[in-house]
Amino acid sequence: MSGPASGSGLRGEAAGRDILALMTELFPICRSITGAGFRETLGILKRRVPLEVREVPSGTRVFDWTVPKEWNIRDAYVRGPGGGKVIDFARSNLHVVSYSVPVRRTMPLAELKAHLRTLPDHPDWIPYRTSYYREDWGFCLSHRDLLALEDGDYEVVIDSTLADGSLTYGELFLEGRTGDEILISAHACHPSLANDNLSGVGLAAALAGSLAGARRSYSYRFLFIPGTIGAITWLALNEDRVGRIKAGLVLTGLGDAGRLTYKRSRRGDAVIDRAAAHVLGQASPPGRVLAFSPYGYDERQYCSPGFDLPVGRLSRTPFAEYPEYHTSADNLDFVSARALGDSFDKTREILDILEQDETFVNLSPKGEPQLGKRGLYAEAGAEEMALLWVLNLSDGGHSLLDIAERSGLGFEAVRKAADKLAGAKLLARRAAKGAAG
Amino acid sequence: MSGPASGSGLRGEAAGRDILALMTELFPICRSITGAGFRETLGILKRRVPLEVREVPSGTRVFDWTVPKEWNIRDAYVRGPGGGKVIDFARSNLHVVSYSVPVRRTMPLAELKAHLRTLPDHPDWIPYRTSYYREDWGFCLSHRDLLALEDGDYEVVIDSTLADGSLTYGELFLEGRTGDEILISAHACHPSLANDNLSGVGLAAALAGSLAGARRSYSYRFLFIPGTIGAITWLALNEDRVGRIKAGLVLTGLGDAGRLTYKRSRRGDAVIDRAAAHVLGQASPPGRVLAFSPYGYDERQYCSPGFDLPVGRLSRTPFAEYPEYHTSADNLDFVSARALGDSFDKTREILDILEQDETFVNLSPKGEPQLGKRGLYAEAGAEEMALLWVLNLSDGGHSLLDIAERSGLGFEAVRKAADKLAGAKLLARRAAKGAAG
Amino acid sequence: MSGPASGSGLRGEAAGRDILALMTELFPICRSITGAGFRETLGILKRRVPLEVREVPSGTRVFDWTVPKEWNIRDAYVRGPGGGKVIDFARSNLHVVSYSVPVRRTMPLAELKAHLRTLPDHPDWIPYRTSYYREDWGFCLSHRDLLALEDGDYEVVIDSTLADGSLTYGELFLEGRTGDEILISAHACHPSLANDNLSGVGLAAALAGSLAGARRSYSYRFLFIPGTIGAITWLALNEDRVGRIKAGLVLTGLGDAGRLTYKRSRRGDAVIDRAAAHVLGQASPPGRVLAFSPYGYDERQYCSPGFDLPVGRLSRTPFAEYPEYHTSADNLDFVSARALGDSFDKTREILDILEQDETFVNLSPKGEPQLGKRGLYAEAGAEEMALLWVLNLSDGGHSLLDIAERSGLGFEAVRKAADKLAGAKLLARRAAKGAAG
Repeated sequence: MSGPASGSGLRGEAAGRDILALMTELFPICRSITGAGFRETLGILKRRVPLEVREVPSGTRVFDWTVPKEWNIRDAYVRGPGGGKVIDFARSNLHVVSYSVPVRRTMPLAELKAHLRTLPDHPDWIPYRTSYYREDWGFCLSHRDLLALEDGDYEVVIDSTLADGSLTYGELFLEGRTGDEILISAHACHPSLANDNLSGVGLAAALAGSLAGARRSYSYRFLFIPGTIGAITWLALNEDRVGRIKAGLVLTGLGDAGRLTYKRSRRGDAVIDRAAAHVLGQASPPGRVLAFSPYGYDERQYCSPGFDLPVGRLSRTPFAEYPEYHTSADNLDFVSARALGDSFDKTREILDILEQDETFVNLSPKGEPQLGKRGLYAEAGAEEMALLWVLNLSDGGHSLLDIAERSGLGFEAVRKAADKLAGAKLLARRAAKGAAG
Repeated sequence: MSGPASGSGLRGEAAGRDILALMTELFPICRSITGAGFRETLGILKRRVPLEVREVPSGTRVFDWTVPKEWNIRDAYVRGPGGGKVIDFARSNLHVVSYSVPVRRTMPLAELKAHLRTLPDHPDWIPYRTSYYREDWGFCLSHRDLLALEDGDYEVVIDSTLADGSLTYGELFLEGRTGDEILISAHACHPSLANDNLSGVGLAAALAGSLAGARRSYSYRFLFIPGTIGAITWLALNEDRVGRIKAGLVLTGLGDAGRLTYKRSRRGDAVIDRAAAHVLGQASPPGRVLAFSPYGYDERQYCSPGFDLPVGRLSRTPFAEYPEYHTSADNLDFVSARALGDSFDKTREILDILEQDETFVNLSPKGEPQLGKRGLYAEAGAEEMALLWVLNLSDGGHSLLDIAERSGLGFEAVRKAADKLAGAKLLARRAAKGAAG
Repeated sequence: MSGPASGSGLRGEAAGRDILALMTELFPICRSITGAGFRETLGILKRRVPLEVREVPSGTRVFDWTVPKEWNIRDAYVRGPGGGKVIDFARSNLHVVSYSVPVRRTMPLAELKAHLRTLPDHPDWIPYRTSYYREDWGFCLSHRDLLALEDGDYEVVIDSTLADGSLTYGELFLEGRTGDEILISAHACHPSLANDNLSGVGLAAALAGSLAGARRSYSYRFLFIPGTIGAITWLALNEDRVGRIKAGLVLTGLGDAGRLTYKRSRRGDAVIDRAAAHVLGQASPPGRVLAFSPYGYDERQYCSPGFDLPVGRLSRTPFAEYPEYHTSADNLDFVSARALGDSFDKTREILDILEQDETFVNLSPKGEPQLGKRGLYAEAGAEEMALLWVLNLSDGGHSLLDIAERSGLGFEAVRKAADKLAGAKLLARRAAKGAAG
């Protein structure tokens, strides 16, 4: 059994500033589900955490899917009848529909328009769009810019390649005292979008740094992967290993100003679900806990019925609830160090519960033991209550998390009471922690 | 396994008009728990659906009860001191207490009054009263008419007979592909009352007509019976057969303007309970679902502890909640084709769930299958959600109804998604449907 | 199986007056967890109920505790610079901190003040304080009196003894037809405080008197004990016997004007919990039911994990919710015969359920039996409902309490219906009552 995973140190807004600095460095890169941008991103992450970079060749079968061709882009623009660039990839990598095939043609406005995407309700924002898994091309621009386009011929250039190559992802394994694993997964395939999902990437990296220096009962596996195909690819290549995963979190959308939101795993009451619900329930203001649904991020894959892993998702505002989602308005101004720091702290609290939950047995179970003669009698009400709850429920059938849930006390208070009582020889540890899931 | 029971056709208000026409034809007949009026009613029904008419002799022991003598009435009136008929059965068959013994006497008003029943709170309405199982006689009239009666001698005539004969009921069996039965029961023993229960009789007849032409997995047994004694008699004569009943509905009070109300079976969570709760929960406005109680209509008998059949009751406004219940105000103006049609549709929807519920197994359960390459990727949110829910929960442990309940989607949307996925070879049917109850 | 425990008679406010008279007699005595005051109290109780007085020598090991020295006090006062007694034990036994060691010294006000306890928020009340398990001394007084003390030398006298002796408690056993026991426990260690806990002591004594004359299925064990150490001592001396305890109540705080409050046992759904919740739920206004927590009175000991007895606590206002708690304001004016009588009645109702709960089997389970021919057909709705519910649920798997809970009817109505039906040979008793806990 472990004590608290004390880690490398930063907490709260200081941790948030650290994450934000990393996000700022990563923001300009044009990422997609494959290609140079993804590799460049992993290269920057590797300077902070010792992750392994994996390459999976295009064409590899992964369950029902096939690893796609690799997409790379060097330049793209649309030059108008007046000769100037009316859309320019150099100004924002959101301007090009991700996975656009190469184009070099001149066409009238009417033909071009069929390939243009805008957001009429938010006329100043550029949408983020993709054409994975179907060969197409397109540009995204603000609706205001669209309206300004004049009739005439446009020169359309997308200098991209879509060719055999590989899918790239990053994996970091921190070995713990047991073979039981906790999976932390962040999709890293979006270009210049901050909350979705540089926030999850940055938080995962900070978490890895923090846990690397901590005592760990669990082993931790961090995945920095392209969404959907990356999770499916990892599962396909590691099918024999997923049984070790006792808990997991998909990290995404953790920098906005909203309250924290936890989405339960398909199982609904796995230890990760209970720990997250406890931490969010004790938070001020309390976070939200949503039931599982098969829509969302990579929890869809981890919770597919053939795996049914105990993996939930931690976010702040769910993606469907903020209009900036998948637009140029999801930029570095949309996130804050304060929110990122709070997300970091709560993630650590959730993982600390997994690390520290265990079951004790009251060694003086007949009547209450006399706390006064041991100097354990506390004046403060909450502290005495924690001692009494731990003594009362430590019958071998209740873990500290069970006690925290039933008593309404915070896990940390319960844990401290158990430590005091164990120190006074009133409690014994029951056995090594069992499987968490 | 079956597809939808498509049936003979009419739905909604058109079906309601059809039911109302039948009710209008049946309305004038003086029915009771036995006798010519019940037989005449079955005769009319038989012109629409091929029911069998059963006759059970008076005196037959049926569990704790005995089939009563048969009651028939030809005429009844009270002639006042002035010589005119002050109460006349020819004007309304509610005027005579049902099962009144023959009377032919002259008596003073004071003596007569002990046999008169009125509703002081609704002075224009005639109550409906019975004297089953105790030999008595009486008249029902409006309170206004009672107050107008003058002192003097009254000639009282009830030209009825109460003699050995038989209890009559109608039974219709539609054989399905399996021996599992669904019971549809409507009491048909009330005289000129529309909602209670010509509405249930008419709806059951329309349902039988509709199901006769449909593909049916279940067999259907329709009972048109006198209340209480009819259900007990049928149970006593068919005790060896009730084990086949996997679901059932008592149909009554289905034409008034109120919302639909489902009363659960004694079991509370039988498939019929879940299907009805689902349909009423999805309706707009949603219907009400009541817990079982041992008071009410013939569900009392089907849900007695010696049978405990999975039989619930479908009504609109429960009988205790509308003042017109068991009065002359429960007439053809109290019901509408619109309400009857809605009741018909919802009953079909409930039965369609029973017919169509089955369990699939996801053949590509590891990660999500790639819907796009199969042309299954839907833009519309709800349709995509249905595909994802069916894939995610089709692990062999969840039927389509389970999936509808957990997802909050309508059963039909879930069913359609399953059909699409099965068509794309992504789902396999697990096995024949098990017992429903 | 038993009929109702009819007992000796008084109910309601008359019972409350009887209890209040006993409390009035006991009020002036200076009780503590040991000593002459406790013995005198038991002597008075013994004139009403034939309890046994037990003496347990100081120094006896009882689980984690040791029976303390016996404390006795003859006099105590503080004489001020002016020569008058400014604090005098003769005026209120709350003035001396219970278990104060002997003192006979003169000291300046500043030194004395460290030993004075007051309630600044309630300046006219004297607090009640103890120094069990640590050798100390002190006086309690009103804050107003404290403020009036002048500088100068004070003569402090506490004429007490703290010496080997014994812990005293009272035990009364009423043998029933079965060996299954119900435990009634009241702490009797507080000096002149009325609600806490002469109310519990008085109610327990009245209950013992009432049950002594009643037919009893259960045996009843009454404990009049010092709080905490008394319960632990009894458990330690009777460890081989606690398995017989099928239900129990800690009685305390039963005379104030608040609503009744039941605190569940650690098990949460023991029969005593269900019976108490039923009685309080049916009361008008309904009482409150609290979840178990390991803080409070002697339920802490009975519900310690090594015993986990089905013992709940019945009170009116919980101690933490009234400011008079543990002050001189908890006097005989704070309690009323009306509240005490109501507490008595409800306690009897709870115990009556334990005595009378049993499981019947419907002997005519197929369809409803014909109540009319047996004269059981009731006009009154509630009475008919009780008959129907008992018939419907008496399938061998539901006790009368189960039926009361599911139907929402009162236990007594359900019990009466069962008696009627059993009298009509429609129900048979299933077997002897099983274990209650």
